Amino acid sequence: MKIAVLTGGGDCPGLNAAVRAVVYRAEQRGHTVWGLRDGWKGLLSSDPPTRLDRASVQEIVGWGGTVLGSSRTNPFKSEDTAKDALRRFQDGGFEGLVAIGGDDTLSAALAMHQRGGPVVGVPKTMDNDVEGTDWTFGFDSATSVAMDALSRLRDTARSHHRVLILEVMGRHAGWVALLAGLASGADYTVLPEEPFDIARFRECVQRAIQARGYALVVASEGAEVSSDLRGGTATRDDFGHEILREKGVAAYLARRLEEEGGWECRTAVIGHIQRGGPPTLFDRVLATRLGAYAIDLVERREFGKVAVLRGEEIRAIPLAEAVARTRKVSPYWLDLLHTFDA
Amino acid sequence: MKIAVLTGGGDCPGLNAAVRAVVYRAEQRGHTVWGLRDGWKGLLSSDPPTRLDRASVQEIVGWGGTVLGSSRTNPFKSEDTAKDALRRFQDGGFEGLVAIGGDDTLSAALAMHQRGGPVVGVPKTMDNDVEGTDWTFGFDSATSVAMDALSRLRDTARSHHRVLILEVMGRHAGWVALLAGLASGADYTVLPEEPFDIARFRECVQRAIQARGYALVVASEGAEVSSDLRGGTATRDDFGHEILREKGVAAYLARRLEEEGGWECRTAVIGHIQRGGPPTLFDRVLATRLGAYAIDLVERREFGKVAVLRGEEIRAIPLAEAVARTRKVSPYWLDLLHTFDA
Amino acid sequence: MKIAVLTGGGDCPGLNAAVRAVVYRAEQRGHTVWGLRDGWKGLLSSDPPTRLDRASVQEIVGWGGTVLGSSRTNPFKSEDTAKDALRRFQDGGFEGLVAIGGDDTLSAALAMHQRGGPVVGVPKTMDNDVEGTDWTFGFDSATSVAMDALSRLRDTARSHHRVLILEVMGRHAGWVALLAGLASGADYTVLPEEPFDIARFRECVQRAIQARGYALVVASEGAEVSSDLRGGTATRDDFGHEILREKGVAAYLARRLEEEGGWECRTAVIGHIQRGGPPTLFDRVLATRLGAYAIDLVERREFGKVAVLRGEEIRAIPLAEAVARTRKVSPYWLDLLHTFDA
Amino acid sequence: MKIAVLTGGGDCPGLNAAVRAVVYRAEQRGHTVWGLRDGWKGLLSSDPPTRLDRASVQEIVGWGGTVLGSSRTNPFKSEDTAKDALRRFQDGGFEGLVAIGGDDTLSAALAMHQRGGPVVGVPKTMDNDVEGTDWTFGFDSATSVAMDALSRLRDTARSHHRVLILEVMGRHAGWVALLAGLASGADYTVLPEEPFDIARFRECVQRAIQARGYALVVASEGAEVSSDLRGGTATRDDFGHEILREKGVAAYLARRLEEEGGWECRTAVIGHIQRGGPPTLFDRVLATRLGAYAIDLVERREFGKVAVLRGEEIRAIPLAEAVARTRKVSPYWLDLLHTFDA
Repeated sequence: MKIAVLTGGGDCPGLNAAVRAVVYRAEQRGHTVWGLRDGWKGLLSSDPPTRLDRASVQEIVGWGGTVLGSSRTNPFKSEDTAKDALRRFQDGGFEGLVAIGGDDTLSAALAMHQRGGPVVGVPKTMDNDVEGTDWTFGFDSATSVAMDALSRLRDTARSHHRVLILEVMGRHAGWVALLAGLASGADYTVLPEEPFDIARFRECVQRAIQARGYALVVASEGAEVSSDLRGGTATRDDFGHEILREKGVAAYLARRLEEEGGWECRTAVIGHIQRGGPPTLFDRVLATRLGAYAIDLVERREFGKVAVLRGEEIRAIPLAEAVARTRKVSPYWLDLLHTFDA
Repeated sequence: MKIAVLTGGGDCPGLNAAVRAVVYRAEQRGHTVWGLRDGWKGLLSSDPPTRLDRASVQEIVGWGGTVLGSSRTNPFKSEDTAKDALRRFQDGGFEGLVAIGGDDTLSAALAMHQRGGPVVGVPKTMDNDVEGTDWTFGFDSATSVAMDALSRLRDTARSHHRVLILEVMGRHAGWVALLAGLASGADYTVLPEEPFDIARFRECVQRAIQARGYALVVASEGAEVSSDLRGGTATRDDFGHEILREKGVAAYLARRLEEEGGWECRTAVIGHIQRGGPPTLFDRVLATRLGAYAIDLVERREFGKVAVLRGEEIRAIPLAEAVARTRKVSPYWLDLLHTFDA
Repeated sequence: MKIAVLTGGGDCPGLNAAVRAVVYRAEQRGHTVWGLRDGWKGLLSSDPPTRLDRASVQEIVGWGGTVLGSSRTNPFKSEDTAKDALRRFQDGGFEGLVAIGGDDTLSAALAMHQRGGPVVGVPKTMDNDVEGTDWTFGFDSATSVAMDALSRLRDTARSHHRVLILEVMGRHAGWVALLAGLASGADYTVLPEEPFDIARFRECVQRAIQARGYALVVASEGAEVSSDLRGGTATRDDFGHEILREKGVAAYLARRLEEEGGWECRTAVIGHIQRGGPPTLFDRVLATRLGAYAIDLVERREFGKVAVLRGEEIRAIPLAEAVARTRKVSPYWLDLLHTFDA
Repeated sequence: MKIAVLTGGGDCPGLNAAVRAVVYRAEQRGHTVWGLRDGWKGLLSSDPPTRLDRASVQEIVGWGGTVLGSSRTNPFKSEDTAKDALRRFQDGGFEGLVAIGGDDTLSAALAMHQRGGPVVGVPKTMDNDVEGTDWTFGFDSATSVAMDALSRLRDTARSHHRVLILEVMGRHAGWVALLAGLASGADYTVLPEEPFDIARFRECVQRAIQARGYALVVASEGAEVSSDLRGGTATRDDFGHEILREKGVAAYLARRLEEEGGWECRTAVIGHIQRGGPPTLFDRVLATRLGAYAIDLVERREFGKVAVLRGEEIRAIPLAEAVARTRKVSPYWLDLLHTFDA
């Protein structure tokens, strides 16, 4: 079979490990693989896809980013580009496509499948918010960077008797903040999944300060700490304070603490630094397993499915199920998290 | 309840995260925790256990080793020490014991349970060879160190057009070699779970050399590459070569390759360097979950059980089941591994 | 002799290595050491200093932050507190003080010396901007964190064909940006020591994009990229664009590039993450040498001096010389830097 | 000018940064650069050298190993190969050669220079044993790996109350052991520069054990701990113990301690793991400066010289001076080291 592969959406550690696994497994089974450039954009381009063989991918397993390039293009948003994309795909003689990406990429894959395209998906996100899989690759690496940052911030917090607040990725789900907080001994963690309770927050910070002279806080960028932060415009919070959306959650929390507690606070926003770098062991292995399994799906012509991790096993679920909703932090994890509040 | 905790066997990253979780969860539920010094030895000592509270463990989540100390002492090997240990435990007024350790420690816990001792287990191994749990903490950290070493060795292999062979931990199971090899793009991986096939090994090395001028090999210390390596004495291998057991698997493989292929080989043995250091995110989170769950088991008086990871969940299985046999690398993993042979 | 030691100003990696060296050297020579809490604040406090011996500092060489605590207090700013500080110092029976810190701390040490106080200095800064010493400890560690961040950002820049701009510490001197840029293969580096040339900046970014589809830029927070950024208020830049000071240099550069080049840019600000964490080898060794030498100075009663690195040697220069002016990036380095512009 | 560049001897971190600097500086000055494959072997090969331009080296600054390959070939050992090498060099139209390497490579460069070859040298060693330069690149990276290993071993030593002994590189000079020991808080460090004093060694270990229950030791592979270790054959040490040379210094020290002190010891040998991996900031910057300066030397036709670091400056010294003798650890450093003995 002639199989295409693409990586879409924001880059994350593990994409190259997945691409390599796709290529090795396909060659092992006698198929050939071609890489589309820059995600779905590659299906709209007149440039031919790149032939990928073992020699071209043998050393990429530990590289950050994606050698195929990525984009946020979605050809299935308009009828014209959808047809164009499908036509080029068929004209290329491809019998299967492995689409590696997050919510947007998998939604596009679903749209292609609904139009008869022979596509399977491999989920990746740094946010771990894809439904139907225990974990997504990219997440362990990104959260490890946040954990490392927290460990650095702790040194400064302790030396200067301050409150240090780290804002991490996570617009709709708080997995990064949750695991980084648990793994770093944070005194309080602010997530999108919970209504923000300023009184409890202040209490935990106070308890930490009393116990050892400093406090360490993690917050998801998407946590709704003030109603005005939702809108993204400069307005007032519930207490009448003027807010600038662009300053973010950490800045808001710091200002509130300084005003009400008199504590000296410092903030850091990890942003894009969290995104690149070599994948962790966990992400390399997960990406490798998923990439290999995607080829098995293509070979068995089980299209419209996505490879997922369930316990110890790699399985397939329908694409429609994976994109149906965002995977949120569950009550079990919230209960565990609060066991460790200061 | 008055609860004791101990860490036994070889130290590994994550032990302190587990101890911290035991303490936080216990305090949250109104119990008190006492640490036994140096594993089961602490039950034979006249020194009193150490009171552990949140203040004493709040910063240890990211520390390597174990703040409680460890040993390989097993009081249940003799009737006298077994009685002594149980008496001291009861005299101390303890209502539950959390024993954190590998095969030996959990076997001792089972022996204590069979004598009526109120004990639960938390599994840890760097080798990942405990039955009944998807993964054990310590393993991800240790294998990450091996992965890092392989990445360094690759630089030298490539620069000098050599074969580099890394010997990693794994006496009875090849999990460390397996995942380190998969994650590092090794050209060949030698495990205890497979009969060693010198011809196929030589073939893969040759293919790698032809493709890019060097080869990278990982081997479990416990792999039976020669019948004479089993005995641990200097004898002859299947080809009549004299072997020194103490030189290890990597040295044997290097000598064979040099003799038969004429390739220049270098070896490295990771040994104890693989053991310490700060735990990875994965190990911190897993250890934290298991430690907290162990307290839930004690509270519910579900003694004789061990907390394990099954898919996304933490559950309990009987201690007897966990120590019944060594968890080996399964056919699924061997098939995946060989997809990536050179 | 009874010797006091303090750490002042912003914490940085290596402070604990210096404190440890002070203690070990002093004990070796038969002196005793006492730690003042929280920098110069410890001289104004009625709490007694902490006795430091080998046992209390033997494991701190690799810890980030400072076990003594720090502050920005300067007792010599007012006559009253200056007298109070000196009196307490004498009442404590101290015969020497080792003040470890940056510009502010060393200036306070100079003031103390001018009032007859028996003090010597040890320089530390993350910015490397202390005059009279080749390098200061803290700088290598902090710049290594910036280098690591750049390597992560490169992955994303390459995958998405973007311009990535990292803003690093350096208010008055561009050493961090300079060395991070040189060591990371940045396409352009913006420093306080050079007038900002927007045309040349745009040109280099363009050349990088043409050569490989992305660009990597480093900028010192203190670079004067627009006259309006100096004032710290929201005004207009030379091209009439409205500026918010708080958005910083990276945000300004990104906006300008997007407007004029049409390139997609992303920014990251490393901030406090650059500050903590374990010191690098270089910083541990430098801090150790300086700390030991400071005791030699005290013992020889060469007060009013500061220990510095000159080539391979540790020497002493007058405190007045070290604080006279900021050490800037020299023409040699600027010439070297521009050799590597895209 | 048409300039050739080669990397010789054992690979180390920083070689690629030096090669990149050679290319960028040469292009900036209007010259062209050609890379010889596998060190001096490239001068004996009929394969043409590789043209190196900015595009081909722009991303290699942080890569371990050497993209040019390396070997231990020395064409100037025989008259025939020497003539052959020089003839090929002239036939290639080269006007200058930059030879990057350690003692052997620089000795070959000197031989070439003595035959009229237009060559300059750039020193690299992991051992830091080249005379005439403050530090060589490769050393900081390699010693950082040793420091990291020591930090891991400390966790195990502390948890199990053992003596842990790490054997590091350094056949003739003890720089790696010295700085790794200083930076890691080792209790004792064994170097080739000092006669081994078993009594003092035992004393320090004992003191460490008494103080905190464990000890950490570093030893250079080249330290002469027993007269029989010199010969490399299995004989007897000064106390009549049978020695196997291949077991190394760490194994010898462990056995002696176990026999005489009754302490439980473990050893680790870092070996080739110390060699590869991404260079540290320090090594990248030093290699970059030296590489650029080498082109300046070629341009000024100052052949027969080697670029070295002296204090803050890069300068040139005669090749003959650099290879005259091995740079050893000086009394200043030994005195500093023993300040920190347990």
